[in-house]
Amino acid sequence: MRIDKVTLAEKFATFGEPFNPRIVGELNGQHVKIVRILGSFIWHRHEHEDEMFLVHRGRFRMEFRDRAIGLEAGDFLIVPRGVEHRPVAEEEAEVVLFEPASTLNTGNVVGERTVHAPARI
Amino acid sequence: MRIDKVTLAEKFATFGEPFNPRIVGELNGQHVKIVRILGSFIWHRHEHEDEMFLVHRGRFRMEFRDRAIGLEAGDFLIVPRGVEHRPVAEEEAEVVLFEPASTLNTGNVVGERTVHAPARI
Repeated sequence: MRIDKVTLAEKFATFGEPFNPRIVGELNGQHVKIVRILGSFIWHRHEHEDEMFLVHRGRFRMEFRDRAIGLEAGDFLIVPRGVEHRPVAEEEAEVVLFEPASTLNTGNVVGERTVHAPARI
Repeated sequence: MRIDKVTLAEKFATFGEPFNPRIVGELNGQHVKIVRILGSFIWHRHEHEDEMFLVHRGRFRMEFRDRAIGLEAGDFLIVPRGVEHRPVAEEEAEVVLFEPASTLNTGNVVGERTVHAPARI
């Protein structure tokens, strides 16, 4: 595999729909994904995967059952496995995810918003 | 463990020396580290770990034995295990690393620049 850099802004420019992650890198069994957040996602948890959200552009709010944490560009948050969460954004945010390759975007709540095989871009 | 966000700029503000990584997060057996790059590091490789470099601020150059790749803020690069590399920066760069918790900063070249137990900040 050829080694090359990835420019996040170029990758985000290739798609528009929110809550539909793309894979932009893979290492040590983990995926690097990018996703647009706009509006409210569904409540879910990942039984076996911790999940990291790093804001590239914009801002969003991670809701937990007992509180919420606001994140801006240059902030990141690690959601431990087993913890219910729901990302919400009033205006669109561009977010980088780091998580095991096994991670489903909807975690334990498989349904119409589940992306079973995110595109590699 | 309390869930909280990490603001990269605040973490970088707590130290100044280059090539001395700090741990700012941990998930799925991986560490999130931050490091300042200034000048030339040593040539090294990681036998068992792929390593990701994401530029938070500034720019640097990753040298390989046969070429070099320039990275700016918002770019990332994954260096596969076994590949010799050397980060170089003429002006200081702030970089986020993602790598297995087992990763030594100097890889196979243990010496005076090795940081055996990076601080958690």
